[in-house]
Amino acid sequence: MTTAASSPAYRRLSVEQRRRQLIDVALTLFAHRAPEDVSIDDVAEAAGVSRPLVYRYFPGGKVQLYEDALRSAADELTLCFAEPQTGPLTERLSHALDRYLAFVDTHDTGFSALLQGGSVVETSRTTATVDGVRRAAAEQILLHLGVAESAGPRLRMMVRTWISAVEAASLIWLDEGKQPPLVELRGWMVDHFVALLTATSATDPQTAEVTRAALELERADGAAGVLVRRVLPMLTEAAHLL
Amino acid sequence: MTTAASSPAYRRLSVEQRRRQLIDVALTLFAHRAPEDVSIDDVAEAAGVSRPLVYRYFPGGKVQLYEDALRSAADELTLCFAEPQTGPLTERLSHALDRYLAFVDTHDTGFSALLQGGSVVETSRTTATVDGVRRAAAEQILLHLGVAESAGPRLRMMVRTWISAVEAASLIWLDEGKQPPLVELRGWMVDHFVALLTATSATDPQTAEVTRAALELERADGAAGVLVRRVLPMLTEAAHLL
Repeated sequence: MTTAASSPAYRRLSVEQRRRQLIDVALTLFAHRAPEDVSIDDVAEAAGVSRPLVYRYFPGGKVQLYEDALRSAADELTLCFAEPQTGPLTERLSHALDRYLAFVDTHDTGFSALLQGGSVVETSRTTATVDGVRRAAAEQILLHLGVAESAGPRLRMMVRTWISAVEAASLIWLDEGKQPPLVELRGWMVDHFVALLTATSATDPQTAEVTRAALELERADGAAGVLVRRVLPMLTEAAHLL
Repeated sequence: MTTAASSPAYRRLSVEQRRRQLIDVALTLFAHRAPEDVSIDDVAEAAGVSRPLVYRYFPGGKVQLYEDALRSAADELTLCFAEPQTGPLTERLSHALDRYLAFVDTHDTGFSALLQGGSVVETSRTTATVDGVRRAAAEQILLHLGVAESAGPRLRMMVRTWISAVEAASLIWLDEGKQPPLVELRGWMVDHFVALLTATSATDPQTAEVTRAALELERADGAAGVLVRRVLPMLTEAAHLL
């Protein structure tokens, strides 16, 4: 405590400010290193405080700091999906994905470590936090599809499956040295959504209804318009299937 | 050892047979319970042998037994994807998915526990084993697409993403009390593949080439034929996009 009190930063910050500062420092460290490669000493050093001070705020040590940092990151990530319910669906989705992918880009190593599992600081709480983000993202998408309360099981499964596909593609993107450029990756993810929505319409009447309404709102020069015009010739070419 | 030797089963089995028996017993237990809910005592009891005997074969205890059982399951799972390279692609994919989904159905709880992470017996080796299955599945699919050696990054990313989507949908299916019926789930996964392949063709020339060749081989009454005929009217209806 004497050491900590002698730090000028310590005197200036309130309890909540100090907690926030330590979480921010931890987030930065966890973003670019696997959790097992970050120690409480690293956090103390980066924050310019003593090791006991970090433990005073986080008596559970690294696991608690990781869980709290993760919850803070999860709140930020959940905000990515908040988007006004106006305009073409593919534009809304593009905005949300741009924010999500910027997050993935910033928190690269931490994002991989978290989602690839097997981490030494992984707990049932970290798993629940990640699942909470997935659930929030799914609810947002169903809201934009106009079926927040009424989505049937197939539409729900479709949205959840697509969210997992986005996570997987993000991990592959990190694994591939951040290739292709983010704007291409985002475009492909939007195309994937439109394709999956359309394919699911073939066997689920509710999805068909939602897809028709979504296509209505699309612009000819938007993502869905470009995709439909590129895909149609390929399908009509397969004349033996028509 | 005296206890074990007194068991009639012990006298009949060779070392390899005994090892195999213990792994099979462990697999059955791990299939329907989370790894944390299976003890070495449970394995010994189910196999009708003593606890020390189990430790003689698996000195690393539960973690080793889990890893070995998982590797055995992984070998079985990898075989699911081996399929002759003849006939329409959607038929080959349907056969592989039927085998994969039968595996998911049989190993339900163990499959969830393994893929949802946070397990107490999860190690870097279990993660590597699961990744090995994913890689083998991706290689098989690229082989069927005729680009085993030559697949570009977008096509590889597409296949890996779809595999993750299949995993995610399988977990959701288990979570939803095994609904919808397996045959519907499999059909939807095949449709998803065709849709993603077609959508990816819009921005990747190699995928476009592969898709054209795949559609050539499809039958009018097969999965791709039915899907194309159901989806086309929906797309052409959106006249403002054409």
